[in-house]
Amino acid sequence: MRIAIPLFDGFTALDAVGPYEVLRMLPDSEVVFVAAAPGVLQDGEGALGLRATASFQEVARADLLLVPGGPGTRSGVTDQPLLDWIRRIHPTTTWTTSVCTGSLLLGAAGLLKGLEATTHWRAVDDLESFGATYTARRVVEQPGGIVTAAGVSAGIDMALRLAELIAGRTAAEAFQLAIEYDPQPPFDAGSYAKAPAEAKAYLANRR
Amino acid sequence: MRIAIPLFDGFTALDAVGPYEVLRMLPDSEVVFVAAAPGVLQDGEGALGLRATASFQEVARADLLLVPGGPGTRSGVTDQPLLDWIRRIHPTTTWTTSVCTGSLLLGAAGLLKGLEATTHWRAVDDLESFGATYTARRVVEQPGGIVTAAGVSAGIDMALRLAELIAGRTAAEAFQLAIEYDPQPPFDAGSYAKAPAEAKAYLANRR
Repeated sequence: MRIAIPLFDGFTALDAVGPYEVLRMLPDSEVVFVAAAPGVLQDGEGALGLRATASFQEVARADLLLVPGGPGTRSGVTDQPLLDWIRRIHPTTTWTTSVCTGSLLLGAAGLLKGLEATTHWRAVDDLESFGATYTARRVVEQPGGIVTAAGVSAGIDMALRLAELIAGRTAAEAFQLAIEYDPQPPFDAGSYAKAPAEAKAYLANRR
Repeated sequence: MRIAIPLFDGFTALDAVGPYEVLRMLPDSEVVFVAAAPGVLQDGEGALGLRATASFQEVARADLLLVPGGPGTRSGVTDQPLLDWIRRIHPTTTWTTSVCTGSLLLGAAGLLKGLEATTHWRAVDDLESFGATYTARRVVEQPGGIVTAAGVSAGIDMALRLAELIAGRTAAEAFQLAIEYDPQPPFDAGSYAKAPAEAKAYLANRR
């Protein structure tokens, strides 16, 4: 099972690393981080670099494609080498997936037309501009193996669901135990519907 | 606020990246990934490299130290340059923290004697061998600003609690919203107490 995760400058590291830590445990899996050229790509914050070991040209197929989001998707939606690679890989996959604003890249590649999908709560209009219908679910499964996850941390929930679909429930539960994913957030502010107005104002002023 | 995250070969990426995505949003924060020498360090799976931009020698203080775990802690507990650096940094910090088996490195550095602490559920005996008392809580706060988190994904919960202590509840709630951390794991298998026997057997056979 080959899992390909593209990186681009300005990605959000947790979008990629959360699901990676689950999917890497799949039986006979091989994970490859891919970019326009091999090397270290810088995240959206600019403080963390992840290494891609293969170029888009070197990776011609994958069983599972996982596209992270991040501030870099703003330019990513017009990055033709990245979008062309996504378009080339998609017909070879069983699962084509995204986390957070990674769905904008699937959308810009033309893969979400007429489908339901999700994204970071801030990017709903952008997502719908590509012909998708936003749904506020945390993980959205569509025909053709297209699965999108909501913002950043939602990739972990998506990866556990994919693990169940690929390797069965017991395997997925084992992976959940391996990463001790028994979440206990100290607040209930993790969705736009639930977060207090003060927290929303804090974020808006921070930008 | 300077946040220092040491990397070593065989770390678990999510231990570092989960809390990073929260703590990087703290006001006036600067995050530095540190290692014996600057460069790319390989994770425990061997498929992902993260870049350290500074050497242990170059980083003499931090407000918050966050030590990730991973298979590499097996040799890490006798890695004197790493342990010496942790011992040097600790007196300069307000918060000295760990995720997963990162607590074994704090323990090996002599920082957990007589304290309550947590770690990955597989590493309880190792933790106690350093004079700490294991507690099954997800985040354990102790006097002197020592905070340990349970396995892998628990670092996200710890980081939100640290954010509250450092910047207040509204800021922490805003960061939770920013990473859309409204966890919805598809199973309830994320702790040793809750995971089904079949999932435990699957993991044991996988090793």
